[in-house]
Amino acid sequence: MQSEASASAQSARDASIALVRQARLTELSPEEIVDELKNGNKTALSRAITLIESTASKHQAQAKEILKLAFGSSNSLRIGITGVPGVGKSTFIEQLGMTLTKAGHRVAVLAVDPSSSISGGSILGDKTRMQELTQSPLAFIRPTPSRLTLGGVARHTRESIILCEAAGFDLILIETVGVGQSETAVHDLCDFFLLLQLAGAGDELQGIKRGIVEMADAIVINKADNEAQLKIARSAQLEYQRALGLFPHKSSGWQPKTMTCSALHNIGIDEIWSMVQEYLTLTKSNGHFAQKRIDQNLNWLEKTVIESLRETLLLQPEVIDQWEQLREQVSEDKIMPVDAAEILLKTALRTKT
Amino acid sequence: MQSEASASAQSARDASIALVRQARLTELSPEEIVDELKNGNKTALSRAITLIESTASKHQAQAKEILKLAFGSSNSLRIGITGVPGVGKSTFIEQLGMTLTKAGHRVAVLAVDPSSSISGGSILGDKTRMQELTQSPLAFIRPTPSRLTLGGVARHTRESIILCEAAGFDLILIETVGVGQSETAVHDLCDFFLLLQLAGAGDELQGIKRGIVEMADAIVINKADNEAQLKIARSAQLEYQRALGLFPHKSSGWQPKTMTCSALHNIGIDEIWSMVQEYLTLTKSNGHFAQKRIDQNLNWLEKTVIESLRETLLLQPEVIDQWEQLREQVSEDKIMPVDAAEILLKTALRTKT
Repeated sequence: MQSEASASAQSARDASIALVRQARLTELSPEEIVDELKNGNKTALSRAITLIESTASKHQAQAKEILKLAFGSSNSLRIGITGVPGVGKSTFIEQLGMTLTKAGHRVAVLAVDPSSSISGGSILGDKTRMQELTQSPLAFIRPTPSRLTLGGVARHTRESIILCEAAGFDLILIETVGVGQSETAVHDLCDFFLLLQLAGAGDELQGIKRGIVEMADAIVINKADNEAQLKIARSAQLEYQRALGLFPHKSSGWQPKTMTCSALHNIGIDEIWSMVQEYLTLTKSNGHFAQKRIDQNLNWLEKTVIESLRETLLLQPEVIDQWEQLREQVSEDKIMPVDAAEILLKTALRTKT
Repeated sequence: MQSEASASAQSARDASIALVRQARLTELSPEEIVDELKNGNKTALSRAITLIESTASKHQAQAKEILKLAFGSSNSLRIGITGVPGVGKSTFIEQLGMTLTKAGHRVAVLAVDPSSSISGGSILGDKTRMQELTQSPLAFIRPTPSRLTLGGVARHTRESIILCEAAGFDLILIETVGVGQSETAVHDLCDFFLLLQLAGAGDELQGIKRGIVEMADAIVINKADNEAQLKIARSAQLEYQRALGLFPHKSSGWQPKTMTCSALHNIGIDEIWSMVQEYLTLTKSNGHFAQKRIDQNLNWLEKTVIESLRETLLLQPEVIDQWEQLREQVSEDKIMPVDAAEILLKTALRTKT
């Protein structure tokens, strides 16, 4: 058995090796980083993601180069996992991740959660909560980048997915908290979308945010940790199943499923993974899987064009000031929205050089 | 009693008077058209809407001028009415319209329905179906403009509303068929959104399109024309009431209602109008009514800016060609969407002069 002193010395050595590696990596060219990354070097992967998240223009140029080199078709599966705080997402992801790594998969966990990054919670949280998975050589866990808008986080997550896949991770778990618009962002970049819920008293559906039920490929009721809770979970399951029936996913041919589990006791996780595989088999054979990825990419293209136009033309200081004034005038019915838009557009295109 | 021959002669005279009026109107200046229109001249109103719908640049310039002059705060109520074909929208609108004109209101009926204009159905349909309302001096019925995309129809409807309100119409009924995205477009420009449904066998909610239930301020089950049908309608009503309970409209303080009616026998129409007035009283006193209009206008401004940017920059022939090529490359995973977007943006901003 290792003494505390020697464990601490070991951890200091690990930290210094990591620092040296990191220092070495900052001197590497984009080509060299991608080579390292394709060899499965997790530190290189981290470094590449850091470059993506950096706002320094030098880093952005490197990140662009890295992404171009890393980009290619992949054999991965991207699973989006959402649920309100307290539903047990981290425990669930750790158990699912362990199940997958034990089956030989390489698992990357990414987070799309602009709100938690403000409190700083998820950065510490991921480390302390997914202790077992963090230590697996087959897993890679990346906390939420901080100081970003949702759009920014979604873009970075999309690019991080490409890097993880280039680094040989074949299962990408994308976590998001079920608040705001982040579920829609995650839904738009994953193959399978799983909603974690808790069983409660009364009308189960009351608490579900609009639109989420329609996006879910599966609803899993967590914390069925004992007989009594299982009973409540099963009754909630029935109600959710009924709600899902109202919104069949016609294009995929998939009838969304409901299940119960206890992430705490690792009960039901295998069954959930089997269900995901069933979805994969179905949608790979009927072409939906490939088509959805194409649609997501075309959608990504479309969004980026509009977003870039907005950034280039509408985020100019002159335009922002004028917009503010015109919003006020529109609010007071002093000008028609179309006329205000025309004035804004003229300014936007004039100031652009 | 009038002979057939004299009725026919009368109708020929009416037609020729209308033609003369129309001819005179084409020579009027925008100021004069707006003056006529503000005096309640329905022919002037028709002419102004025709100018809005015209693609000729001379007409567009006149339309712009007319809109500017007509624009102002109004005391109108805008009711959106949707439902699948066969639900009895026209009969319902005619009965509601007659109820309102009898109470002294001036009622305008507009349609947002790009699909029916292709078949030409609604143009003939409105005339033959709403016969009684058409003849009321207090009513104005405008069929769907043809050959337009949904975005185009929505824009024209928005502008037509302004003209109708300037012409003294205080109740604007906006009809749309419950297919495609047209309900969202109508929801974004009305104060009260009413969904017409039929009672059927089995699971009532099955047939409802995603999102509609969430938008509805009321669901009315039509064709409760006899005892047996009323019974079925009442049971459907319960089911809808439950579904609406899942999606309370928090910001308005309004709990969406369900009702039954027989438009055919004019049963329940008065009660529906009372309910709408109840909504008005509530939302005018709690400020939601005014705030929603402001939000709709700000949203309209935002949409117009983005839409105009897209039209000015992205609908250039060079950009369209390149976009097509890049979409193919993206579909085949040959280029990353962000890189494709960058290329497109350069072309869009370069070709613009």
